[in-house]
Amino acid sequence: MIAPDIKREFINIVGEENFEDSEVERLVYSYDATPNFQSIPDAVVSPRNTEEVSKILQLCNENKIPIVPRGSGTNLCAGTCPVEGGIVLLFKHMNKILEIDEENLTVTCQPGVITLDLIHAVEQKGLFYPPDPSSMKISTIGGNINENSGGLRGLKYGVTRDYVLGLEAVLPNGEIVRTGGKLAKDVAGYDLTRLFIGSEGTLGVITEATLKLIPLPESKKTMLALFQDLEAAARSVSKIIANKVIPATLEFLDQPTLKVVEDYSQIGLPTDVQAVLLIEQDGTPENVSKDMKVMEEICRSENAVSVQIAQSEEEAEALRTARRTALSALARLAPTTILEDATVPRSEIAKMVKAINEIAAKHNVKICTFGHAGDGNLHPTCTTDIRKKDEMERVEKAFAEIFAKAIELGGTITGEHGVGAMKAPYLEWKLGKSGIDVMKSIKAALDPNNIMNPGKLFAKDTRKRVVISK
Amino acid sequence: MIAPDIKREFINIVGEENFEDSEVERLVYSYDATPNFQSIPDAVVSPRNTEEVSKILQLCNENKIPIVPRGSGTNLCAGTCPVEGGIVLLFKHMNKILEIDEENLTVTCQPGVITLDLIHAVEQKGLFYPPDPSSMKISTIGGNINENSGGLRGLKYGVTRDYVLGLEAVLPNGEIVRTGGKLAKDVAGYDLTRLFIGSEGTLGVITEATLKLIPLPESKKTMLALFQDLEAAARSVSKIIANKVIPATLEFLDQPTLKVVEDYSQIGLPTDVQAVLLIEQDGTPENVSKDMKVMEEICRSENAVSVQIAQSEEEAEALRTARRTALSALARLAPTTILEDATVPRSEIAKMVKAINEIAAKHNVKICTFGHAGDGNLHPTCTTDIRKKDEMERVEKAFAEIFAKAIELGGTITGEHGVGAMKAPYLEWKLGKSGIDVMKSIKAALDPNNIMNPGKLFAKDTRKRVVISK
Repeated sequence: MIAPDIKREFINIVGEENFEDSEVERLVYSYDATPNFQSIPDAVVSPRNTEEVSKILQLCNENKIPIVPRGSGTNLCAGTCPVEGGIVLLFKHMNKILEIDEENLTVTCQPGVITLDLIHAVEQKGLFYPPDPSSMKISTIGGNINENSGGLRGLKYGVTRDYVLGLEAVLPNGEIVRTGGKLAKDVAGYDLTRLFIGSEGTLGVITEATLKLIPLPESKKTMLALFQDLEAAARSVSKIIANKVIPATLEFLDQPTLKVVEDYSQIGLPTDVQAVLLIEQDGTPENVSKDMKVMEEICRSENAVSVQIAQSEEEAEALRTARRTALSALARLAPTTILEDATVPRSEIAKMVKAINEIAAKHNVKICTFGHAGDGNLHPTCTTDIRKKDEMERVEKAFAEIFAKAIELGGTITGEHGVGAMKAPYLEWKLGKSGIDVMKSIKAALDPNNIMNPGKLFAKDTRKRVVISK
Repeated sequence: MIAPDIKREFINIVGEENFEDSEVERLVYSYDATPNFQSIPDAVVSPRNTEEVSKILQLCNENKIPIVPRGSGTNLCAGTCPVEGGIVLLFKHMNKILEIDEENLTVTCQPGVITLDLIHAVEQKGLFYPPDPSSMKISTIGGNINENSGGLRGLKYGVTRDYVLGLEAVLPNGEIVRTGGKLAKDVAGYDLTRLFIGSEGTLGVITEATLKLIPLPESKKTMLALFQDLEAAARSVSKIIANKVIPATLEFLDQPTLKVVEDYSQIGLPTDVQAVLLIEQDGTPENVSKDMKVMEEICRSENAVSVQIAQSEEEAEALRTARRTALSALARLAPTTILEDATVPRSEIAKMVKAINEIAAKHNVKICTFGHAGDGNLHPTCTTDIRKKDEMERVEKAFAEIFAKAIELGGTITGEHGVGAMKAPYLEWKLGKSGIDVMKSIKAALDPNNIMNPGKLFAKDTRKRVVISK
């Protein structure tokens, strides 16, 4: 609990109405989109500007109160679960788009702006902000930066990191730093901008961001390729890239995912095939047509059952929306949905999908797989029930094997969801002890009192490595 | 000097032939491409593999011997000048391209590979590594990563940072870390990859890199637009981008630069105009033609005297080469050439060029300006003579005002050259004290004995800010 005198100080900073510590409010912010993680914060604080954030951090630093910065809490790594209590910092007042600069192709905004609102605002000016996490309807730019969010357009356009030109951030000691700017090039010192991106709120609080925009592509086409052979679908992905076509989107859905997505979205998706590739290309109409033709031929050469181009933007949008709802659709199947994020070099996708299916069968758990095939970024998703203790143990064993397999194939434990509390025990598998040690030393240097989102990234115990049965 | 017993240990690690401490050898590595900086190292060591690098770092760490990792020493910030003595680390044995992976579109190489050799090697496979610093004929990939080098293609394609997917690096304590991989997405912990990129050898030694490749564009066109009004040229740059055309290259040369470049390269460049834009676009032939037309019209609307498209690849290559030789050409004018790197938002280029000319006139020094106009990355270059003490003082005052002006316009003290020893006194102008403090704390966390390239980035004294006369 927060002592009364400190509570008074918080209220002095943000005002009575922006400090909440009722039981209801604290319960609301005790969890995020990650299943199986819940922890009650001591209070919920909503600063109105950077100066208030600075004062809050000073106060917390002096009193060693944990701070969990939170956007919309859509992350899937328990990144915003207040595992050590303290205050949850909300950005509901700091949610403005400050400037769209058409000459420098930048947008400057506060952390609480909803991702899709920003995308729509810049599209009005013929500009394009590509990062599009599936949660973009509710996720915030601040959350996206803290998690270095990816999305469906990552293959061609990169991830959030590739679009952040400058940040204003408040350090744990309350000092305000500004990094980068409206600059295509800036090498003045260490890359603090990118150190903050993906740091999951463990190094400071981002209070403003300047993002890079690009011209909005002229046109776009969407195609669905159906396969009876899952590995043929995966091979098509590799072949497309190896043929030097980089589509805007190259998504993969396996049969179980397809079934639930169709059941949920009712747009006439086929449910009798083993795998589907959802492919999009954007650019000039000529380039789009040319690339679509090459990709269609590749899919056919891999014995695709059917390859269909969406006949209208409505049809295309329905396909994209269906794909984005995969998590919601799967969530209807069982009380608990655990969506994971194992990522491999794209040449290894076929092997990885096969391994996931074998691992699921071995442990008798239900895992569907979909994801950003072009990035090698797969989302094996387990539908289960956290109340069934025995099953949950098997689920955990299965995911441990999936992470181990991803690393064995040259991959990583997380492509775009982050480490948070959930994957902290596995981080050492990817980084080794020396990698973890370096990161811990950076954390200690910037946040010696460990007030910023404690309990994330670094686990008290590392899981033992599993040996994968061949 | 290195004590005899430690010298023996170095020789035990790398062999007699890879440890040099003759006066001649030490003199050779006492300077880099930066004028006015020279300092004699104690020895020059050439490891043959990562394990040897690790042992060298352990030995140096135990004995607090400074290490300066050096590629070809083409940097312009005194980044590889051994200002505190110690050993210079050469990568002449670690210069192999290890793998070109056509399925994952990556190349993996050792730090000593020459940039242009790597570019040519991947082009043979129809692939493209865009970063092209002007020194690419002799610069190394390791040097490029340490400096986060830019180049002429930065506007459309980004800089070195945007193409590094993974690194192997040796920490000052000798531990070997591996970051990233052949992965389009990886958010497992802090972004160590990008923390190392541009860290100027102050955090560790990069021993291997995995770089992202993209498909080689089908075609390319090159255009020269001549202006009698320098500001009209700058306005054209802004208009091109604001019209949502992102050319591959958008270079600016002022009249004095043009004159010396033509004098040097003799390819028939006009020398009677105030400014030239060298514009390139690549992509499909249709897109290239369309974009070139839009850009031509914009230049004409800004009263360009002439707009000419190169009629052959030979002619285009001659223009590009002429631009790349600007530094060499200017170097013939006077005993000392100081090439700077002030960078502003591209909307501010006209103001910046004007300010540079006014500042040069005020201090009675000769400054030519050329650079990557599309990036707002200008290279004001002073031809002078370090033996003339009075003139050098005026040169230094002029550059201080140029940096101050760049920052006033929302820019930075260095876009692509780095801070090194040369610009360290100005770094605080860009970052503020809190920014410098954060960076120093990171440096201390990773390199507590300050053995890695000491005397760089962080200056003992910060220059006083200058007040710019309006």
